[in-house]
Amino acid sequence: MAISQKMLAFAERSSWIRKMFEEGARLKAQYGADQICDFSLGNPDLPPPAQYQEAVRKIIDAETPGAHAYMANNGYPFVREAVAKQIGTEQGLVMGQGDIIMTVGAAGGINVVMKSLLDPGDEVIILAPFFVEYTFYVDNHGGVTKIVNTADDFSLDLAAIEAAITPKTKAIIINSPNNPTGQIYSAAELAGLGTILTKAAQTIYLISDEPYRKIVYDGHTVPSIFGAYRNSLIVSSYSKDLSLPGERIGYIAVHPEIEGKAQLLGAMTLANRILGFVNAPALMQRVVAELQGVTVDCTVYGRRRELFCKVLREAGYEFVPPKGAFYMFPKSPIADDARFVGLLAEQKILGVPGRGFGMPGYFRLAFCVEDAVISRSAEGFKKALAAAKKLA
Amino acid sequence: MAISQKMLAFAERSSWIRKMFEEGARLKAQYGADQICDFSLGNPDLPPPAQYQEAVRKIIDAETPGAHAYMANNGYPFVREAVAKQIGTEQGLVMGQGDIIMTVGAAGGINVVMKSLLDPGDEVIILAPFFVEYTFYVDNHGGVTKIVNTADDFSLDLAAIEAAITPKTKAIIINSPNNPTGQIYSAAELAGLGTILTKAAQTIYLISDEPYRKIVYDGHTVPSIFGAYRNSLIVSSYSKDLSLPGERIGYIAVHPEIEGKAQLLGAMTLANRILGFVNAPALMQRVVAELQGVTVDCTVYGRRRELFCKVLREAGYEFVPPKGAFYMFPKSPIADDARFVGLLAEQKILGVPGRGFGMPGYFRLAFCVEDAVISRSAEGFKKALAAAKKLA
Repeated sequence: MAISQKMLAFAERSSWIRKMFEEGARLKAQYGADQICDFSLGNPDLPPPAQYQEAVRKIIDAETPGAHAYMANNGYPFVREAVAKQIGTEQGLVMGQGDIIMTVGAAGGINVVMKSLLDPGDEVIILAPFFVEYTFYVDNHGGVTKIVNTADDFSLDLAAIEAAITPKTKAIIINSPNNPTGQIYSAAELAGLGTILTKAAQTIYLISDEPYRKIVYDGHTVPSIFGAYRNSLIVSSYSKDLSLPGERIGYIAVHPEIEGKAQLLGAMTLANRILGFVNAPALMQRVVAELQGVTVDCTVYGRRRELFCKVLREAGYEFVPPKGAFYMFPKSPIADDARFVGLLAEQKILGVPGRGFGMPGYFRLAFCVEDAVISRSAEGFKKALAAAKKLA
Repeated sequence: MAISQKMLAFAERSSWIRKMFEEGARLKAQYGADQICDFSLGNPDLPPPAQYQEAVRKIIDAETPGAHAYMANNGYPFVREAVAKQIGTEQGLVMGQGDIIMTVGAAGGINVVMKSLLDPGDEVIILAPFFVEYTFYVDNHGGVTKIVNTADDFSLDLAAIEAAITPKTKAIIINSPNNPTGQIYSAAELAGLGTILTKAAQTIYLISDEPYRKIVYDGHTVPSIFGAYRNSLIVSSYSKDLSLPGERIGYIAVHPEIEGKAQLLGAMTLANRILGFVNAPALMQRVVAELQGVTVDCTVYGRRRELFCKVLREAGYEFVPPKGAFYMFPKSPIADDARFVGLLAEQKILGVPGRGFGMPGYFRLAFCVEDAVISRSAEGFKKALAAAKKLA
């Protein structure tokens, strides 16, 4: 056997996702990519803001000596200071560079946190439906994932979370605005969560994964997690708000008064190094320092959301309109969500079954695509629903 | 306890390194940084070649749509093709994009290989003196490090390697040109290693970590690893030959006929994703595609090597002149290398004890510093040796 047993199992487990992508590729080859309505990928299609190009040019022109050398594993102090200032403003706290570690995206950041916290068998609570990568990030470092469902409207089910806490619970990961639901947890929900976690016999760290914080609709905002709970960490990136996912630039921000702060920051800095990230990419660190508070034009995503809600509503689908992020998570008209996604594919529409997010009976549609693709999909959504009703 | 038991132990284990850095920082604060001869860090000080700036400007000016979006987890096909062509030429084989995975530096690449290969308790052989990070990379993914010493001149001790192979041996990591010794393994040594590994009952993968391949002296070259052994992988980066260590851009290249190729490449692509790297930084992928075959001006390192050899020889130290990389690894004049490094510090010279590389009784000096620093250190090296002789 060339590879490890675990990776072999992972490869098999993810084979239906690969099949789905292969089916999508086949449809695109057969009909032409412009004939397919591809809502399967959460890959931001807006260009980075114009300030991005300016920032890169300015940094390259400056040719600062050592600008591409190794720096401290937690990142450049001046970059961490800029990030701390912005997050402090958003969270309503005074923060400094010592509260920030620059990371290789939020994915790198969550792995760093898991590596730092978890002893073998420690439990991490995640909320369904969930970003499937969390289960890998916990497993990578010897942890055990405990899945707790959210409520019917995808808000927090506080009683269920409280019931899931055991003496082995070390952390809980939340994601708001949420992928795949677009839900934002309210200040009251977060306060309730903070109360529950505070009551636990041991320290439980709350990890808030917030890459969609700036992508919100209808005047919704994302409440402060640091205001709700002291033992919390924000792990985020510039992948969505600056449309730079391929550049792998993110950060970990800790509550300035988090328990075991010095030890935790030391461990995370060491984990950033020994997991092979070493440091967040140097040039992109300098770039994001220049772009604090800048975001892509979210009105574009807002317009598409309106359009998509209209298309799905008129076609007769049941869904909770997203408050943020760029996903719809409608109910599948038949129990078998994978089968329904197949019916959509027959209409040249690509989505992802809810089971890919730990919640069968739903499906996810990403609207980081041109408006025209959404409009063009309207007839297909109606036909797929009609086909589903014949099966039911 | 805030952090995991393992990270706590790691933090304590590395505390003497921290102490050393703190001592260095204290000396710099006391006497001024320009008064300290700091040979402690392997952080390339040459600027990237001029073509680097040009490449970044060209890419930013082109504003290719989606240039910063997610791509396939193994990297852009055109980048992998460019890398494959260059490595194929160096290794004397026809290679294609399917043989390459772009990674977050070589450190990211080795973690990806370990994650893909290791079942719990699998053994990985590394050769002392070694880059200390290897021990973490193996442990991160449940493996066990087996340390084998090299010969007196730091060449391969083939008999010792053969003796260390057990039914649990899954891989061996070599590093040539070597950090910390500057040794390059000859074609005959590599052929001998290939023969030993081929004789083993199970498949043993040979991982060749080669970031210093282009930094060689006196007409030395680095022999082809793919020519020596079929089940080999090259893991490398542009950190040293393009002076871009902070940008975290590297790759894994597999022998085109490596055993279990499809499964191995699939696992490594998945590992790149689930470990949180996701993909190598997009902009830097595009940059290195433009810079294949370009290197920093190695004659600068060559000049410093000459100078440093002269300084140490005249002071009376015993050492093997490095064939490549930018390190000297002299014998400590007293058995206690940490104590001797302390004597050097009294002369305002910073080095690293050999025990930091699994080989007490030596010390490492990195010469990625200005020539003047090397010249200025001459007296200090003489005085430290005299002080050591009084102790012995």
